[in-house]
Amino acid sequence: MMRQAATTLTVDTQGCGLVEVSNEVINWVAKQGMSQGLLTLFIRHTSASLIIQENADPDVQADLLAFFRCLAPEDGKLYRHSEEGPDDMPAHIKAALTNVQLSIPVVNGLPFLGTWQGIYVFEHRHVPHKRSVTMHLLGE
Amino acid sequence: MMRQAATTLTVDTQGCGLVEVSNEVINWVAKQGMSQGLLTLFIRHTSASLIIQENADPDVQADLLAFFRCLAPEDGKLYRHSEEGPDDMPAHIKAALTNVQLSIPVVNGLPFLGTWQGIYVFEHRHVPHKRSVTMHLLGE
Amino acid sequence: MMRQAATTLTVDTQGCGLVEVSNEVINWVAKQGMSQGLLTLFIRHTSASLIIQENADPDVQADLLAFFRCLAPEDGKLYRHSEEGPDDMPAHIKAALTNVQLSIPVVNGLPFLGTWQGIYVFEHRHVPHKRSVTMHLLGE
Repeated sequence: MMRQAATTLTVDTQGCGLVEVSNEVINWVAKQGMSQGLLTLFIRHTSASLIIQENADPDVQADLLAFFRCLAPEDGKLYRHSEEGPDDMPAHIKAALTNVQLSIPVVNGLPFLGTWQGIYVFEHRHVPHKRSVTMHLLGE
Repeated sequence: MMRQAATTLTVDTQGCGLVEVSNEVINWVAKQGMSQGLLTLFIRHTSASLIIQENADPDVQADLLAFFRCLAPEDGKLYRHSEEGPDDMPAHIKAALTNVQLSIPVVNGLPFLGTWQGIYVFEHRHVPHKRSVTMHLLGE
Repeated sequence: MMRQAATTLTVDTQGCGLVEVSNEVINWVAKQGMSQGLLTLFIRHTSASLIIQENADPDVQADLLAFFRCLAPEDGKLYRHSEEGPDDMPAHIKAALTNVQLSIPVVNGLPFLGTWQGIYVFEHRHVPHKRSVTMHLLGE
């Protein structure tokens, strides 16, 4: 019989950077006792996002940060929207270029991630934030 | 008992820019009478996309447009695909960098958006278009 | 009565480029005999991604490849992560800018794609790879 489960995870970020949440996500899914299903993660913000990336070499994260910093620089002359600080509009742009939502099939009771895939909250603001990520699971 | 509902929304765009559809989406979900579920929006085009962004300051939209215009400029020398006009290939690129699809958990009968999150159709062509956005809801 | 189906498709890529999988996806969905539902595709890699794009003019694919090659160039000076080759970090960036996952409503037994939409695996590495794409279908 198909059923649903949902919860909201609070993720403490430390300013610009990736925070891995794979274990929190996997543990919650495992506890729901559904062998097959669809997991959806949704971040309820516009200056942080979700990303699945390589979880082996930390240099990948440093390179990703540098790439996005360069693509959407903190340059006051570029943006009209500046009241919330010079890092706010670049944060919205970075969120637009990545994702607010990820859906992952559940196979044998677990999110069916590839070997090198980790799930991350991507914080785009300088200051640490508490970010809400809602997890929704549908399956049986 | 889990059930589904679906409909297709037609969105009139006014050329390059963001058209907010949050109210249409929220009202349709509310009418389905499902307290918990998963909402999926899918845009059936390759030169317009879907985006969740800040809905408070209109400058955010102006800055986003300027960013994408600069990232994928209308420069005839850059692209082979030009038969449909100089804005067509940049439109495909902008669609590739954003999303054709968004899934949002439904909590207490409504899409569980964050306080500042609005749902937008992002038109990438100069000329106004009628865009089809299919909404699919699964829940109970 | 709502039910699920899932399978994993292996896609042989020929190095950097788009491989259309629309037919494989459509045929599999058609065989499941569900008139209405939600299809989710998930690629289990961090240097290849999924993209929905115009399937009419092959020049669109060439232009997309050129755009992403220029946006995330293979330049050893730009990246720390280099052990897996000069094309590996650009591949992670391109995957971050596109998608690992796509969900598409199913209407009348088929994925409800727009007229010009094709589903592609976007290979970001130079060498041909076997890529795993998990398909999950929920419906009735």
